[in-house]
Amino acid sequence: MEIIIVGATGILGKAVTDSLKINHEIIEVGLKNGAVNADITSLESIHSMYEKIGPFDALVSTTGAVHFGPLEEITQEQWQLGLNNKLMGQINLVTEGLKHINDNGSFTLTTGIISNDPIRFGTAATLVNRAIEGFVTSAALEMPRGVRINAVSPTILEESVEAFGPYFMGFDPVPASTAALGFVKSVEGLRTGEVFEIRGAI
Amino acid sequence: MEIIIVGATGILGKAVTDSLKINHEIIEVGLKNGAVNADITSLESIHSMYEKIGPFDALVSTTGAVHFGPLEEITQEQWQLGLNNKLMGQINLVTEGLKHINDNGSFTLTTGIISNDPIRFGTAATLVNRAIEGFVTSAALEMPRGVRINAVSPTILEESVEAFGPYFMGFDPVPASTAALGFVKSVEGLRTGEVFEIRGAI
Repeated sequence: MEIIIVGATGILGKAVTDSLKINHEIIEVGLKNGAVNADITSLESIHSMYEKIGPFDALVSTTGAVHFGPLEEITQEQWQLGLNNKLMGQINLVTEGLKHINDNGSFTLTTGIISNDPIRFGTAATLVNRAIEGFVTSAALEMPRGVRINAVSPTILEESVEAFGPYFMGFDPVPASTAALGFVKSVEGLRTGEVFEIRGAI
Repeated sequence: MEIIIVGATGILGKAVTDSLKINHEIIEVGLKNGAVNADITSLESIHSMYEKIGPFDALVSTTGAVHFGPLEEITQEQWQLGLNNKLMGQINLVTEGLKHINDNGSFTLTTGIISNDPIRFGTAATLVNRAIEGFVTSAALEMPRGVRINAVSPTILEESVEAFGPYFMGFDPVPASTAALGFVKSVEGLRTGEVFEIRGAI
């Protein structure tokens, strides 16, 4: 398969690339690095990415920014960060990608464990993760030509504990290579409209 | 209690008003009708509404617009309708309302059954409903001064079957007066961070 990985240069994206490149051709997409560049907050940039790449079999997105902070202090701009970037960025990857994806292809988006296990300072992220999961669940029903769509919802990665550990006290981190399994299952499997949770013991 | 009902002039809002006015003082808010006017897509309008009303005990929102249409035809403006109106409108009612609500008050927002039971043409609505439910689940954890927050997720109302029935084939409509029970339970009860589903037999 020809697989586009948006966010391929990030911690999770690298692990997914390593897992999928064994059997597939990977096109690594990053904001500034990678074989092709794309800014998911720009519809034109997404359009241009697909024009450069041409037909493909699977798109994996392991990217998306969102604000963390106390509920009462979140500004309009901070709410919009998650809505414009992680949410609409990934939705536009799908809706634009539908014009280019091969029959029976797949889209796999990224949400995050706090979708269903909320934390202090995480309301904007929980909101966006749930929205993406709602999109995936519903969009799967309207996908044309056998195209599938799933999301992967990983817990905090071992590689991210130093940076984000204090937000995720009591969570059981997993290596990025374990989180990558969710993306492999989505791309290689048959299921659609699913959210694959990747979590440790709790 | 002094209870603000935003969307009080709609089908659902009227039923909620009828149920709550028996024991409480109701302030009916509508876009153009009601005792106080507010446009939930405008932060200034929400701010002005709260300034006019002063301290209150509960806010119920039974309002929010969202686009219905085929997934592949939804435009950026149509995605934004739901994000700006039903989602951010209700969120801003809460975050602005926190500055005025009395201790141990409550917020009750409205989502909708297709949050978990998606339908053709409903992706933008499912996305927004899930996002609101994520917001409620997480925001409940950070509410100050004993303030509670819940959502009510009603199925299609009997009163709306003529207008929206074709979208909701196989759903079991309930009267608006039954859907109102969810709001009464939220306002009068003790639970917080919950989504009260109001559905018929299926």
